[in-house]
Amino acid sequence: MPGTRPKLEVCLSPALLHLYDTKDTVVVIIDIFRATSTIAAALHNGAARVIPVASVAECIEIGRYTPNSITAGERDGKIADGLEHGNSPSEYPASFIDGKTLVLTTTNGTRLLHMVKDAATIITGSFLNLDAVCSYLARQNKNVLLACSAWKDRFNLEDTLFAGAVASRVSNEYDINCDSTRAACYLYEASVGKDIITFLRDSSHYKRLAAYGLEQDMEYCATPNLHPVVPILKGKELVAIH
Amino acid sequence: MPGTRPKLEVCLSPALLHLYDTKDTVVVIIDIFRATSTIAAALHNGAARVIPVASVAECIEIGRYTPNSITAGERDGKIADGLEHGNSPSEYPASFIDGKTLVLTTTNGTRLLHMVKDAATIITGSFLNLDAVCSYLARQNKNVLLACSAWKDRFNLEDTLFAGAVASRVSNEYDINCDSTRAACYLYEASVGKDIITFLRDSSHYKRLAAYGLEQDMEYCATPNLHPVVPILKGKELVAIH
Repeated sequence: MPGTRPKLEVCLSPALLHLYDTKDTVVVIIDIFRATSTIAAALHNGAARVIPVASVAECIEIGRYTPNSITAGERDGKIADGLEHGNSPSEYPASFIDGKTLVLTTTNGTRLLHMVKDAATIITGSFLNLDAVCSYLARQNKNVLLACSAWKDRFNLEDTLFAGAVASRVSNEYDINCDSTRAACYLYEASVGKDIITFLRDSSHYKRLAAYGLEQDMEYCATPNLHPVVPILKGKELVAIH
Repeated sequence: MPGTRPKLEVCLSPALLHLYDTKDTVVVIIDIFRATSTIAAALHNGAARVIPVASVAECIEIGRYTPNSITAGERDGKIADGLEHGNSPSEYPASFIDGKTLVLTTTNGTRLLHMVKDAATIITGSFLNLDAVCSYLARQNKNVLLACSAWKDRFNLEDTLFAGAVASRVSNEYDINCDSTRAACYLYEASVGKDIITFLRDSSHYKRLAAYGLEQDMEYCATPNLHPVVPILKGKELVAIH
């Protein structure tokens, strides 16, 4: 019945976040290339937690006092000076990450995650955990904001495509009166029948990362449901919902 | 040859305008429902100029000292107190507006127009003057920014659809490495084969204006090429390019 269902909205850029009421809302942070993909891989493969941090310095400092931790992050497609690992989801198999704490610095995704102040819950979404996110949302009966990390505040195709993939799957459960959501769904519909990665090869971010030789990484990020986990923010840590 | 053509970008909201370099750029201001549609209609029907202003008070003041002028603007779908006419393109036939100055107050479109400071040229676009805008752009050989007025900074479907209609028509002439442009083109492709208005009936703004009984107005705004004119900003006035 219209009006009685919770609402679902899509925020296309952190620069638009102030337009949305996140109180009592489940916020899904989306950073497909690659923060939220790496988070899904690490937690599904047994990481005890992921601590997302904004700066390399903070990453090093937290890594120093956290037992059994790994520091990770890239700048310009390379492992940042002073850190141990990169931002590829494929770098975190269970044999390596199980039981460890991943201290991860990324730019766009981490920044957005820290911008959301008053949500009921913050989770992270990626194609790797698409269906798990949708199932989680369906169980909450709360307003939802699908929040795209974008690229330095600029709209990007891959985050919006994922928002459309989620919105298309769960739309019957929500009141949708948000043009961003409609556009995300149209975008997703345009991709149906293609591989996600084929669709995304034309995006700015794909081209930027491909210039660093990260094509395989992006194929990994575009694989649906490889890591069925729901990462949820508890304090300053992302942990898997069990 | 890639790299030698000017670039074309789409800005989805005034809140993202700071991300774009508008210097030496032709900026197309888009406010389909209804400012830039009304501007096209008035100028094509012979208005000497349109003076876009932000507030009702300013509209009244400029109208008072401008000979042969008409003050117009709406708030909440009704003619604003103190003004003479509304913001419907159909209110400005040649028999009424020819030779007159239209002092027009609108919210989203006017605000964006005043935000752009250093463009080479500012013109306004709408479905009513779609092909005229495309032809004008093709003659300039300059970078282009298609700037959507949005709704109180929120992404909207109708302005983005128009940006996609323009970008789809002129894309061969430009370097496009902008995900907003790609998304606008996908949106436009989704509308092909439907009436524009049929496609837009699902948008937030359509529903908002339909609640004021403005359906016919919106059908008018969705009619391609009814008013083939290029409104260009000269100082504080929009005039038709001849």
